Amino acid sequence: MMPVYMADYSIGVDLGGTNFRAAAIDRGGKVLEGISGATNFAGGREAVLGDIVEAIEALRGRHGRQTLAGIGVGVAGFIRIREGFIANANNLPYLENFPVRDELARRLGTKVILENDANAAALGEKWVGAGKSVDDLVLLTLGTGVGGGIISGGKILRGAVGMAGEIGHTTVVPGGNPCGCGNQGCLEKHASATSVSAMAGMMHLGVDMSARAVAEMARLDSEEGQKARVIWRVFGESLGAALATLVNIFNFPLYLLSGGVLPAWEFFAPAMLETVARRSFTYRATQPDTRIAPATLGNEAGLYGAAYLSWLEE
Amino acid sequence: MMPVYMADYSIGVDLGGTNFRAAAIDRGGKVLEGISGATNFAGGREAVLGDIVEAIEALRGRHGRQTLAGIGVGVAGFIRIREGFIANANNLPYLENFPVRDELARRLGTKVILENDANAAALGEKWVGAGKSVDDLVLLTLGTGVGGGIISGGKILRGAVGMAGEIGHTTVVPGGNPCGCGNQGCLEKHASATSVSAMAGMMHLGVDMSARAVAEMARLDSEEGQKARVIWRVFGESLGAALATLVNIFNFPLYLLSGGVLPAWEFFAPAMLETVARRSFTYRATQPDTRIAPATLGNEAGLYGAAYLSWLEE
Repeated sequence: MMPVYMADYSIGVDLGGTNFRAAAIDRGGKVLEGISGATNFAGGREAVLGDIVEAIEALRGRHGRQTLAGIGVGVAGFIRIREGFIANANNLPYLENFPVRDELARRLGTKVILENDANAAALGEKWVGAGKSVDDLVLLTLGTGVGGGIISGGKILRGAVGMAGEIGHTTVVPGGNPCGCGNQGCLEKHASATSVSAMAGMMHLGVDMSARAVAEMARLDSEEGQKARVIWRVFGESLGAALATLVNIFNFPLYLLSGGVLPAWEFFAPAMLETVARRSFTYRATQPDTRIAPATLGNEAGLYGAAYLSWLEE
Repeated sequence: MMPVYMADYSIGVDLGGTNFRAAAIDRGGKVLEGISGATNFAGGREAVLGDIVEAIEALRGRHGRQTLAGIGVGVAGFIRIREGFIANANNLPYLENFPVRDELARRLGTKVILENDANAAALGEKWVGAGKSVDDLVLLTLGTGVGGGIISGGKILRGAVGMAGEIGHTTVVPGGNPCGCGNQGCLEKHASATSVSAMAGMMHLGVDMSARAVAEMARLDSEEGQKARVIWRVFGESLGAALATLVNIFNFPLYLLSGGVLPAWEFFAPAMLETVARRSFTYRATQPDTRIAPATLGNEAGLYGAAYLSWLEE
């Protein structure tokens, strides 16, 4: 006899250049089962897609086909949502301009939703994370690059082809560092884990230091500690300028930050908040109702959001 | 005997620091009657509100109470929509933090909607202007200041208290000219009719020249003409940087420009479009579907949009 009731669940996939993860998550936000592995970058497109399909099939086999609401895949890059491919994928170049969504759907024999990873993370934070209490928020993922996800009225703001939310490529320094996107002075060139590492190198603090290491260094009562604190202050100013623009444009109640720079929150937040307050009348006029806060789901946000996509589309 | 049918109409008001206008407009976008006058700035709050109430009552008296869908008022400033007052009104300081909406509603004995003038103009362009064919657009009004209005999914993006869309106060030059909003390098300090006039003064072209005069000068085959063309090129670069940020954030299909700088379109558009293309991957990836174009309703846009507010709220 078949079970008369099984919880409705969805499968979310977070595909990064280094790792991929997949999880079966129920409608209440409970992770039923998770799978993770290294992205087989060297194996190329076929290997990467094969590993994803295998992970999804394993989850689907164990948790049931009938009660599966859908499959969502979050991946870095400029995504053309409506067409289902990645127009610009620095981390996974061999997926660029390939019909990723339709190929996964074909192999799995069911519909798949493809979404930008930061959009998925923003949705995840809205569903079960720091954004639960609001319908409108912006999430910035401050890691190797800077991703952005915008939730407006409870839904992902996607724009005409699904490329909305590329906040990491908004200009904060008009004549600043050149970016792979063709622009100069992009936010991700001036306020990412990568930019912190680059500044640490320029200040002779070390080669290839992680943002976490620069955060640890900022705790030291030494000349190095002072340099590290200056780096985080500059980081906070750049981030604050971008946030002021976002507050002026959206007047949303919540702006969440996540990624590898969060351990340095105490070192960059004062300069960031001072800059936002100085540069945004709206921010000052809406205190304390406009909040800038750390996201709470960490690396899991994208996985939750990818799973939730199936319900959002209903 | 009463007429058995009268067209449903709405009253829109556009209240500026210099002039105010009111119009009865029917559901099809036809102006049934318009009234305009000088804003009695010297007379203060009582005189200004009295003139508006009188104009609305005149229109309502002639076009009927029963078929009036509603009354919308567009005014410059940071508007707290939900509370119905202007938090920051440079042009009409005595209306600042005064319950404008509720006071008008009380005197007229009916509901009134208060809206930012650029938001209203964006809605007007979407209704009967250059944005008719899309559901998502951004309008920039490039006049004395720079206003912004964002239409997302056919509705005004308002944000938490109604201050969304203040694009004129986004930063284009981080260490640039100080602005009344507290920021430095605001778009409206670097790409407005006022900034063009200021540059013309600095370049010894004339004192208090209008943007239109600087546009005329740009046509001259002389040293002055060359200076004027450089001013418009710089203007185009600043505007292009702001538009690139908007395209990256929204990925909307349409960005409209209006205001006193439009006569110089041919002089600033090339630098503007070149800058957007260079600074926005999304713009390049979505050509020719992402368009930057002149708005078509001119000063009438806000009046149409203010009238349409009543139907939008339904």
